[in-house]
Amino acid sequence: MSQQNTNKPAATDTTSVTPRATNYPQWYLDVIKRGDLAENSPVRGCMVIKPHGYAIWEKMQRELDDRFKATGHVNAYFPLFIPLSFLTKEEQHAAGFAKECAVVTHHRLKSVNGEVVVDPESKLDEPLVIRPTSETIIWAQYKNWIQSYRDLPILINQWANVVRWELRTRLFLRTTEFLWQEGHTAHATEAEAVEETARMLDVYADFAENVAAVPVIKGRKTPGERFAGALDTLCIEGLMQDGKALQMGTSHYLGQNFAKSSDVTFLSKEGKREYVYATSWGVSTRLVGALIMTHSDDNGLVLPPKLAPIHVVVIPIFKTDAEKALVLEEATKVAAELKSQGLAVKLDDRDGIMPGAKYYEWEAKGVPLRIEVGPKDLEKGSLCLVRRFVLEKEGETEQELRKRRKTFVPRMEAIASIKPTLDTMQRELFERARVFRTKRSRVINTMEEFESYFAKDGGGFAWVHWAGNHEQEDEMAKRFETTIRCIPFPDQIPEEAKGEGKCILTGQPSTQRVIMARAY
Amino acid sequence: MSQQNTNKPAATDTTSVTPRATNYPQWYLDVIKRGDLAENSPVRGCMVIKPHGYAIWEKMQRELDDRFKATGHVNAYFPLFIPLSFLTKEEQHAAGFAKECAVVTHHRLKSVNGEVVVDPESKLDEPLVIRPTSETIIWAQYKNWIQSYRDLPILINQWANVVRWELRTRLFLRTTEFLWQEGHTAHATEAEAVEETARMLDVYADFAENVAAVPVIKGRKTPGERFAGALDTLCIEGLMQDGKALQMGTSHYLGQNFAKSSDVTFLSKEGKREYVYATSWGVSTRLVGALIMTHSDDNGLVLPPKLAPIHVVVIPIFKTDAEKALVLEEATKVAAELKSQGLAVKLDDRDGIMPGAKYYEWEAKGVPLRIEVGPKDLEKGSLCLVRRFVLEKEGETEQELRKRRKTFVPRMEAIASIKPTLDTMQRELFERARVFRTKRSRVINTMEEFESYFAKDGGGFAWVHWAGNHEQEDEMAKRFETTIRCIPFPDQIPEEAKGEGKCILTGQPSTQRVIMARAY
Repeated sequence: MSQQNTNKPAATDTTSVTPRATNYPQWYLDVIKRGDLAENSPVRGCMVIKPHGYAIWEKMQRELDDRFKATGHVNAYFPLFIPLSFLTKEEQHAAGFAKECAVVTHHRLKSVNGEVVVDPESKLDEPLVIRPTSETIIWAQYKNWIQSYRDLPILINQWANVVRWELRTRLFLRTTEFLWQEGHTAHATEAEAVEETARMLDVYADFAENVAAVPVIKGRKTPGERFAGALDTLCIEGLMQDGKALQMGTSHYLGQNFAKSSDVTFLSKEGKREYVYATSWGVSTRLVGALIMTHSDDNGLVLPPKLAPIHVVVIPIFKTDAEKALVLEEATKVAAELKSQGLAVKLDDRDGIMPGAKYYEWEAKGVPLRIEVGPKDLEKGSLCLVRRFVLEKEGETEQELRKRRKTFVPRMEAIASIKPTLDTMQRELFERARVFRTKRSRVINTMEEFESYFAKDGGGFAWVHWAGNHEQEDEMAKRFETTIRCIPFPDQIPEEAKGEGKCILTGQPSTQRVIMARAY
Repeated sequence: MSQQNTNKPAATDTTSVTPRATNYPQWYLDVIKRGDLAENSPVRGCMVIKPHGYAIWEKMQRELDDRFKATGHVNAYFPLFIPLSFLTKEEQHAAGFAKECAVVTHHRLKSVNGEVVVDPESKLDEPLVIRPTSETIIWAQYKNWIQSYRDLPILINQWANVVRWELRTRLFLRTTEFLWQEGHTAHATEAEAVEETARMLDVYADFAENVAAVPVIKGRKTPGERFAGALDTLCIEGLMQDGKALQMGTSHYLGQNFAKSSDVTFLSKEGKREYVYATSWGVSTRLVGALIMTHSDDNGLVLPPKLAPIHVVVIPIFKTDAEKALVLEEATKVAAELKSQGLAVKLDDRDGIMPGAKYYEWEAKGVPLRIEVGPKDLEKGSLCLVRRFVLEKEGETEQELRKRRKTFVPRMEAIASIKPTLDTMQRELFERARVFRTKRSRVINTMEEFESYFAKDGGGFAWVHWAGNHEQEDEMAKRFETTIRCIPFPDQIPEEAKGEGKCILTGQPSTQRVIMARAY
């Protein structure tokens, strides 16, 4: 079988990545393009996830799915379509979600003069909405599944595509169709449902920090920012390199709202008929966007090793045919030895592409480690290891930094060092992001400081006291484009932000600070 | 975390399964219901895949995905929506597929007097079709990805949901929305594309026989039965227990049809601009239907161990509290020892459910092995192993057969025997299905015999010579409800069916026999 080419962009595409400092939004798009992760499609707002981008999503899925199963959940699949009448049942939910949906109204096409058109006679009696989220269709089913406390809890997750007709879209971060998982659980008691809501937020935070290497703040949304139909919305918030917040996952305590609108009751142990308690929780392909914006640099994509589809790329370097034979033999051996350690290894032995172009390509795709194998390395019995990144030092030049990324290591030692090096890189990425977040967080007590933080200093996480109402939140949004990202859990508040105080806007007393930021 | 209940039906549901001989279609539905695999949804023709059914599909996905990756393919994701105009581009394809599609015409809802309705002002300029298959949208993208022979081959697979507005639906076998995978590859030469088409059919046949334990015949469809837009459609055909054929997977050689309609050309090594060659191939959740109809019996679902979400269920049996403590300790140990062998084990220690009800439940769910642990087993140092099935012997009573399923084995020996027993059961299921197929296959040379085979003898695979045209195929379908399932590859033809002959209908000379059968 010939060489698979789908996960490489043409190696001749050497357009560079716009620096972050020059144009951050363009940098983001360039990283995606050069990393060959995704692209826009001819369908408004829908993206094509290309093989390298999808491989990252698959790794995320596996890590998340393992965690869902370890906490007792099982997967299932519910229909893509929701009958329109279902949305009328849960008005509050519908008001929040049903506005911008794709609606199926016909079920047949026909040919007219060689052109394919919608057959007007195939109009549906009841329009079908493409699921923007599945609470209504799933709870209609749970009604049949739940009779007594013995049928509870139901702990189901679904991996699916959903559609929200977004006006302004951005690859991964906000697309009309996106891929996600949605957990929908049913419980006999409020306490159990509340516990589940918190448990799944912890699962998301664990994934974000220990797999994606993105530090997050756990907290709850204000009433105005809650999921439509929820009594409580918990979230994890990350901070991107432009100082904007990104909501990376939410877990909702839905109380008995959906049970009531779908009339789902159960016979309790005490023989009483009661409404069931619900949760729902989800993360999406937006996480790929968070990954890009947290770790990548002006050379392109940077991936935490735990989510890298390829850990190590091995590149043979030679001039003559004699050299080629020897170098290829060694490169093949090195690749095989690393594969036997369970690592994902790519031997890039493509002809007709200069090594430099290969370096450039794999760096842009975020492969954590590169091994160069040349005649001199063979002679010396060493390998040339190049890390995708090293932590920057104060006042270092780009050249010095590049030099530090590269080391020549005796062969055996090199082979043994790969796994520990990847572990180090995983830790360093998280640490670097944590340091960045600390730098871009500020405890703020006055409106003047708040204004200048966002107007002059680029903004970030502003830790402020807040006691305003929903209208006053809107006022802040209008004036500064900031929102309350979350009311952090007490253990998430850094020392310097702890304690009571007065609302930054109203001066009213406040028991704890919240995080305000601009957000995606 | 409390006991997960979603993959059990209420143990109190002891409705029995309709015997196959009484009513085969009802038996099929009963097996699905008692096995808790899937159910109809409120959305016309769409099913809900319940956790136990979805777990089987997940195991299928993993096995198939591993095989796709081992043959050099990568996964990606393309939009759910296809602009209507794309279907006009490939008329032949559209004519075959576009007839019964879900069509999105609006993108917004609004509330009117507390009722949610479609906002007429949100009408789309161009309707969007929910993908019935993705050739058109994928090839529109490939156009941007392919410039030279260096960009080929593209070997992409997609796991996705698709929608075909079916008039008559049946759980798993034919549903309006279904889950599948669709491979879409692009090649520089006809030879390479033809080779790919055959390779993927082999992957499907390998999966069907060695994982699903369903024997299949590999062959090609007649021109009238080809995929819309294909030059050649290869397929694997299984034979279900009612003597009907089931198409279990198809692999299409598309020639340059889609490249031409989407204008996808490449610069060859020789510097010529040429159209790209294409293949596509797919299998779907229909495979779960094939699994059910090949192996299950009048007690419910039977699963090949390689696709069983649970390999072994351990059931403690006791009367007194003292017995309970001892028996539970032993059952927990047994389960742990088996888990450490990499087996999927369920310890069913639910209170308040009689052992008999548990046996019944797990048998209906197709768990291959049950281990009963009671006080007597503890005393003797043995375990009671019960197999979900054993091969039937001629003239055996139901009671004798039930007895043979159960053995008492010294503990250590029992633990060591589980894996080999599962391997044996996997082999036996395949063998049993192969014997069944042989019994229900017949070499037929006259129309009289053909008629009586399907009218009186229940039918099956009829090996007949055929030289008719498309109209004559339709004639056979009208008279006997039979179709040509495939023109088998030469190596698939049994000895007694080999050789040339004369068409059963027209008497014209024919070079080889085809398989005619009734089909799902």
